[in-house]
Amino acid sequence: MLKQRLALLALPFLVAAAPHDAEKLRDAALKDTVAWDIVEDLTTEIGPRLAGTEAEARARAWAVARLKAMGFANVRVEEFDMPVWVRGEERAEVLGGNPQPLALTALGNSGATPPQGVEAEVIAFDSVAELTAASAERLRGKIVFVTHRMNKAQDGSSYGYFGPVRRLAPSIASQKGAAAIVIRSLGTDNHRFPHTGNQSWSDGAQPIPAAALSNPDADQLERLIKRGKPVRLRLVLTPRQVGIGKSGNVIAEVPGTDPRAGIVLVGGHLDSWDLGTGAIDDGAGVAITAAAAKRIMDAGRPKRTIRLVWFGAEEVGVRGGEAYRSRHSGEPHALASESDFGADRIWRVDFALPPAAKAVADRIEAALAPLGIARSSVQARGGPDVGALVASGVPAVTLQQDGTDYFDLHHTHDDTLDKIDPRKLAQNVAAWTAMLAVVANAPEPLVGGAAQSLPK
Amino acid sequence: MLKQRLALLALPFLVAAAPHDAEKLRDAALKDTVAWDIVEDLTTEIGPRLAGTEAEARARAWAVARLKAMGFANVRVEEFDMPVWVRGEERAEVLGGNPQPLALTALGNSGATPPQGVEAEVIAFDSVAELTAASAERLRGKIVFVTHRMNKAQDGSSYGYFGPVRRLAPSIASQKGAAAIVIRSLGTDNHRFPHTGNQSWSDGAQPIPAAALSNPDADQLERLIKRGKPVRLRLVLTPRQVGIGKSGNVIAEVPGTDPRAGIVLVGGHLDSWDLGTGAIDDGAGVAITAAAAKRIMDAGRPKRTIRLVWFGAEEVGVRGGEAYRSRHSGEPHALASESDFGADRIWRVDFALPPAAKAVADRIEAALAPLGIARSSVQARGGPDVGALVASGVPAVTLQQDGTDYFDLHHTHDDTLDKIDPRKLAQNVAAWTAMLAVVANAPEPLVGGAAQSLPK
Repeated sequence: MLKQRLALLALPFLVAAAPHDAEKLRDAALKDTVAWDIVEDLTTEIGPRLAGTEAEARARAWAVARLKAMGFANVRVEEFDMPVWVRGEERAEVLGGNPQPLALTALGNSGATPPQGVEAEVIAFDSVAELTAASAERLRGKIVFVTHRMNKAQDGSSYGYFGPVRRLAPSIASQKGAAAIVIRSLGTDNHRFPHTGNQSWSDGAQPIPAAALSNPDADQLERLIKRGKPVRLRLVLTPRQVGIGKSGNVIAEVPGTDPRAGIVLVGGHLDSWDLGTGAIDDGAGVAITAAAAKRIMDAGRPKRTIRLVWFGAEEVGVRGGEAYRSRHSGEPHALASESDFGADRIWRVDFALPPAAKAVADRIEAALAPLGIARSSVQARGGPDVGALVASGVPAVTLQQDGTDYFDLHHTHDDTLDKIDPRKLAQNVAAWTAMLAVVANAPEPLVGGAAQSLPK
Repeated sequence: MLKQRLALLALPFLVAAAPHDAEKLRDAALKDTVAWDIVEDLTTEIGPRLAGTEAEARARAWAVARLKAMGFANVRVEEFDMPVWVRGEERAEVLGGNPQPLALTALGNSGATPPQGVEAEVIAFDSVAELTAASAERLRGKIVFVTHRMNKAQDGSSYGYFGPVRRLAPSIASQKGAAAIVIRSLGTDNHRFPHTGNQSWSDGAQPIPAAALSNPDADQLERLIKRGKPVRLRLVLTPRQVGIGKSGNVIAEVPGTDPRAGIVLVGGHLDSWDLGTGAIDDGAGVAITAAAAKRIMDAGRPKRTIRLVWFGAEEVGVRGGEAYRSRHSGEPHALASESDFGADRIWRVDFALPPAAKAVADRIEAALAPLGIARSSVQARGGPDVGALVASGVPAVTLQQDGTDYFDLHHTHDDTLDKIDPRKLAQNVAAWTAMLAVVANAPEPLVGGAAQSLPK
């Protein structure tokens, strides 16, 4: 009888306050240490984890054990095949009267020099446009140097603007008969860390050695060229394609009460470049989204299933995202959003939701405002591994991290745990937790209907 | 007749205003670009210039041509012999269940591993004192790791305090039978640049491989060790002693009118470590002192001869300073002061002058105050290459640079031109110019008499 009375007393409270009070969960998450522990353990125990390598496989095994221990359901790996490229030796030196070494690193899919290297005169271009306009005659047998200098941008837009220097210039140089290409790093720092990154050879372009100089080394080479005499370099780059290997997506779930309400997909990518330990790219992203999903799980069962995906092989062509899409795009997705822009504080939220869900955006905006996060009128794109899903109409909420300093570290040896500020990491967890609390329980329909930016 | 009248008119002016008005020369020097040009050309055209190597010889040839072109008198090289150590391959990796590379660099005079490397378990110590107290039995065959973490200090004093980690720990580890030693870098940054630096084997200590880990890599190794399982490393370090080579001091002068008034010796060191291009250590110092000496020269003939010395082989045992002392200590020196603590602004002036020259210190203090430089009561030591001369009684004025961030870059790959702020470099030139204007023309005797700190 007493038990019954207590149950009756408790009932109105349970109805009035859902288990996923976004504000309460948000504020508790500001003291989060779960995300830190994940990114510390991943970067320390696994370290660099290039897609398709044994290190990435160790990361998957580690991830499965970790996600099971955290209490997630349906923890599994979905493997896929991929071609694997690995770095070799890499050295560069200025020849002639001013001999000295330069710091550089091969770009993804770079061709190799002979073991003793390649020697040639440098020809410099200040942009991809200038390189494109140059005659093949001028380039033949030369080492092309593209000097275009990346600038900082809080929203990361400069990566799009300067990206062709890495993505297109190697193929253009190859097609015009260059012996090799070095570019100024796509990076905004002035440390002697070259920035690697993916590039693919366009149709008909034969692989040539393609590398990035650190920014101080690019400065140095520019200064030497300005002195007016021909500058010759020797490059030794011995990366290689090692054939087909395995990568995979690691998936874990918080089962929802209403399967018809659609899946809320969040995550980051588990692979990293091979130079650093992938703390900001993207240990932080897998940690933030897992910590937020766990907070929802620990508070009670949500309406919608939360599916956490730690994607494989993002860095080398968004292969995990494509593998997920090809396998799961037929399932109803209420949301798809990835954290993959570092560990700095979130300053902005972008939406792509069906018009009928405008109230969801309003509630998310209200829950994020105390964290210093402002609503934008930019349409959310969801992040690299879910970009194709979102482009096809799946809703997204992008929690935009401050990217002002992101390209200081991006794809360098220097992307290590010490660069993460635990308080900023917790602010990220708080924002993702609040967003998930709203989206996973929203009574509004989210599946289907063209997603829009929904400015206020 | 007209000419004669003009000369008569001009005469009182020439007598009233000495050619070396410290305030006017100082203010003009705040727009100095000469120092920048020197450090740019040295770091660009020569680059790294390890003592005793062909690169340091090229730096001397460059220096002679440059100093002659600037108009200095008696430009010459004083060569000396020295044993030369050069870096080889350097790699480290964690073995076992958490395999990953670590960034490290050999310390000066490090022994070599076999080409395939050495593998052993790591034993960590948090200080030199703890290492000293450990039994040889515990160290035998192990790789010692000293984790003592250097802190920032504006006056550079922490380099003295933490220095034994680099200078003494390798010999202690060797004497206790360790297979190798790695230390946390003597550096205050958190970038993946290991800091090299000199160390000498104490009597009876056999050379063993001795290297510094970058601070993020030292953090990583500490975290792995804290996980409780034995941690094994493989080190590949193949530096070698290459025998006796040549170094030398490059000397240039501004002849004075009074040979009995003593020589005013200023300078920096021309050699650098081999990793970076030696911009802050010590391209800046040679540039600052040369630019200041040129400003005095261009204003007219000073009373005292200014002798500019660009020392060789400072980094590897202050060999240039010792070569100079053994050859020139019999000559009368009115001052000996070196610039060798980077390129940040000067914030403090220390004195070591004869008591009879107290008015000189007062005039220097007055001339420096508008640059934001305060007088200290610390006795000037003059700088590494002139330290022995100053300790023997030669007067010194130390223009103390702000060293708060100096050990972020010191002895790393990252010591490059872009780290120098041209405005701060000009503030240095202004301070050295003002100091030289006072000292080179002071009517007070400076030679002889015990030099003291002369607090106000």
